[in-house]
Amino acid sequence: MKHSEHEGVDGARGEYVTEFRPTPGMVFLIGGGPGAADLITLRGLKALEAADVILTDHLGPSSVLDELIDTTDKQVVDVSKLPYGRKVSQEKTNEMLVDFAREGKIVARLKGGDPFVFGRGFEEVQVLTQAGISVHVIPGVTSAISVPAAAGVPITQRGLVHSFTVISGHLPPGHEKSLNDWAALACTGGTLAVIMGVKNAPAIAASLIANGRPETTPVALIEEGTTDRQRSFRCQLGELGSVIEANGVRPPAVYVIGEVAGL
Amino acid sequence: MKHSEHEGVDGARGEYVTEFRPTPGMVFLIGGGPGAADLITLRGLKALEAADVILTDHLGPSSVLDELIDTTDKQVVDVSKLPYGRKVSQEKTNEMLVDFAREGKIVARLKGGDPFVFGRGFEEVQVLTQAGISVHVIPGVTSAISVPAAAGVPITQRGLVHSFTVISGHLPPGHEKSLNDWAALACTGGTLAVIMGVKNAPAIAASLIANGRPETTPVALIEEGTTDRQRSFRCQLGELGSVIEANGVRPPAVYVIGEVAGL
Repeated sequence: MKHSEHEGVDGARGEYVTEFRPTPGMVFLIGGGPGAADLITLRGLKALEAADVILTDHLGPSSVLDELIDTTDKQVVDVSKLPYGRKVSQEKTNEMLVDFAREGKIVARLKGGDPFVFGRGFEEVQVLTQAGISVHVIPGVTSAISVPAAAGVPITQRGLVHSFTVISGHLPPGHEKSLNDWAALACTGGTLAVIMGVKNAPAIAASLIANGRPETTPVALIEEGTTDRQRSFRCQLGELGSVIEANGVRPPAVYVIGEVAGL
Repeated sequence: MKHSEHEGVDGARGEYVTEFRPTPGMVFLIGGGPGAADLITLRGLKALEAADVILTDHLGPSSVLDELIDTTDKQVVDVSKLPYGRKVSQEKTNEMLVDFAREGKIVARLKGGDPFVFGRGFEEVQVLTQAGISVHVIPGVTSAISVPAAAGVPITQRGLVHSFTVISGHLPPGHEKSLNDWAALACTGGTLAVIMGVKNAPAIAASLIANGRPETTPVALIEEGTTDRQRSFRCQLGELGSVIEANGVRPPAVYVIGEVAGL
């Protein structure tokens, strides 16, 4: 390896680039949106088109990729971390990003939703810039907002809420590694949108109810939103766990808790 | 008026349409993203291209419109509600949307950011469907997440936060019409992102500090993010008001409060 730790292609220093200008040896970190192929941004598509190699998750707009693969000779690498299934470690993904960039390729890292919404996107930015590789981040439509919208649920509504909170539900309330204060989250006065929270939904609903959110609070639950496999359910907070179980709801899914879910 | 209250063109019932299929007499409610022209979605652009008439805010990707206006004969109507300035009332906007749709036009309603993030988007959906007009909502990249990203601030980071809250700061804490519980918002354990909160920043910072957020909490403040007029500042929560005043920061601006702003 002829590069030092803080040096990229041609001795470049790793920068957080704000201008869109594809250059060999750089990485685009792209938010692909909630799933539908045409909910990626124009800039996101331009970056995919400019890329020599694309590292992608199982989330995001896979049909965009199918088209690009059919019509170009891009290399596409699946770096999915499937819950409870096959996975490529984050370390391996980071290593591939660095290696491809050091080979002078234009690298696209495609993620579902927005890269900075619980996507470990900034960890990749840190690894790359420390390795001397420049990164340009392209935001995406986050599923936490757009998936409810696709089911007719607005995350905010005038006169009902002045805030909304997006929560990662991957750890149950009370878990030693949880960084959420569920007592405070129950009392914000705003909408709550939980992603990655299917498995822990019963514990999350119980905690919110114990901390003051009424059992009758409206909930909208949407599975595989914006895709043609979308299913959605309306219920009350006290019924969330049983609705998930009765209908066999599986990730990816979002649930929205609050008055907006009753509109 | 030959239409009844619940009847649109050709007697159609107003529906919340999930499939993208431009049809005369329907309205597209489009999130235009944070400001940069290429941060609109592919579907958003397709809807603008299909539209006969476009009603637009002062936020959103105005340069996209400039190009469309130069090359087509679309009608573009400015329905901005500028803070403390010229404004078109929401009622007038609603009326125009209904009237254009009843004339059989394909109508695009372009908003900045995402249509359901404090944009009164769902009110427009309700007015239109009640008037018998079908609406398709196209989500957008919200400025609450993408503007910090453009300044290098991730709204989440693994190990630091498991939630983030987007707050409308248009009313100060304690205002009789405020629906926010600032004591709870101070204690969620997650990132806070405040939009429409420039004027009330000193009161908001004081309330969060009084409710337990340390004065030294990192803050990132970004004005006109993603545009070529973007300015950004880093400070501590206790200094936010004075930084805004000293630098003459004006809307639109976002500030992010929490450990992620110190990365």
